[in-house]
Amino acid sequence: MTIRYPNGKPYSPKPSEPKTTQQRKNKNLSFSNRGKTLEDEIDEANDYYLKKNLAIIHKKPVPVQIVKVEYPSRSAAVIREAYFRTPSTTDFNGIWNGYYIDFDAKETASKSSFPLKNIHEHQMTHMQQVTEQNGVAFIIVRFSSLERYFLLPYDILQKAWLAMKHGERKSIPFSTFEEEAFEIQAGYYPRIDYLPVVQQLITTKRHGCANKEMKE
Amino acid sequence: MTIRYPNGKPYSPKPSEPKTTQQRKNKNLSFSNRGKTLEDEIDEANDYYLKKNLAIIHKKPVPVQIVKVEYPSRSAAVIREAYFRTPSTTDFNGIWNGYYIDFDAKETASKSSFPLKNIHEHQMTHMQQVTEQNGVAFIIVRFSSLERYFLLPYDILQKAWLAMKHGERKSIPFSTFEEEAFEIQAGYYPRIDYLPVVQQLITTKRHGCANKEMKE
Repeated sequence: MTIRYPNGKPYSPKPSEPKTTQQRKNKNLSFSNRGKTLEDEIDEANDYYLKKNLAIIHKKPVPVQIVKVEYPSRSAAVIREAYFRTPSTTDFNGIWNGYYIDFDAKETASKSSFPLKNIHEHQMTHMQQVTEQNGVAFIIVRFSSLERYFLLPYDILQKAWLAMKHGERKSIPFSTFEEEAFEIQAGYYPRIDYLPVVQQLITTKRHGCANKEMKE
Repeated sequence: MTIRYPNGKPYSPKPSEPKTTQQRKNKNLSFSNRGKTLEDEIDEANDYYLKKNLAIIHKKPVPVQIVKVEYPSRSAAVIREAYFRTPSTTDFNGIWNGYYIDFDAKETASKSSFPLKNIHEHQMTHMQQVTEQNGVAFIIVRFSSLERYFLLPYDILQKAWLAMKHGERKSIPFSTFEEEAFEIQAGYYPRIDYLPVVQQLITTKRHGCANKEMKE
């Protein structure tokens, strides 16, 4: 008998190959999900989507300025001096069914609201630019203490961001997520199957190609 | 009097802020273009597109596995041990007017053909996946000795790649570029203004959004 998930996909116990030691450490598919970061969960989903040809979404590497590299004989090149650079984009981007997808992953321990200090100016600028080019920009927020996940569209984030700039509250209340964001139901594998929710977002926002008019 | 380029854009002598020391070293807008790599030229174009809100296309950082980081007091964190990882994608991706754009930049000194050894298996796989998701995948090739630039659509690259796999020639003749690729005319600034050619490609191939039917 085939065990199936709510989304109808058959249960396959084999997890995707982890790309990083971090992922390898955390290859834990149980519901308790100890120690696994939201980024790991999204990497897991992206690996799954890639294998199933559902979407091509990758995490961008951390930008580093490489200064010194050593080439030991008979072994791999070793970077001996490098510095972190500020990213100019969000962490994840790619394509699903012709749509350009661009987002960041954020976690908060708060039960009552999402603090906007989790968002950086350059991320807002980038998501604004993506939106102007009619891409699909959003953030995925995990309320760790509640174990609830939401996809928050950029336009709602932007509204809160601008309000903050005008001296209003520095966080987005949880109620706004329940009312205006798209909840992602955590499953088994991939635990964070966010693609169906992206599809909902696209339908709702009437995203289209070569069409700058977007429904607000 | 405003000086204008063939594409009608007014001449602005101020170059974009370089993102890397590499670019800073090479901020040379002359036609001779000494020592400037194709990647630098494409970065220059991308910076220009970003500033003018024409397209949001970024080079992906080199993926590195960071092992050891030092935190000297009163100065930036220093990466003391890291290793290069094999990228799983092409170097450039982003969005233009709702279209997902994905490409790599390749240079050859050959005057007669483009050697396919410049292309890696993982890049072909990625461009195939992008094409299946209805993204716009291609490579930009610079024939350095001829100072001529071409945008080669993925489907033409794929044809040559598969032929090679079946024991046929290991390179794409220059004549194929002249006949089937889209030539990019080198200008002043940005020197490699490739966006109009991408637009041509999209029109020719009838790329569409959320529409998997593509003309071969």
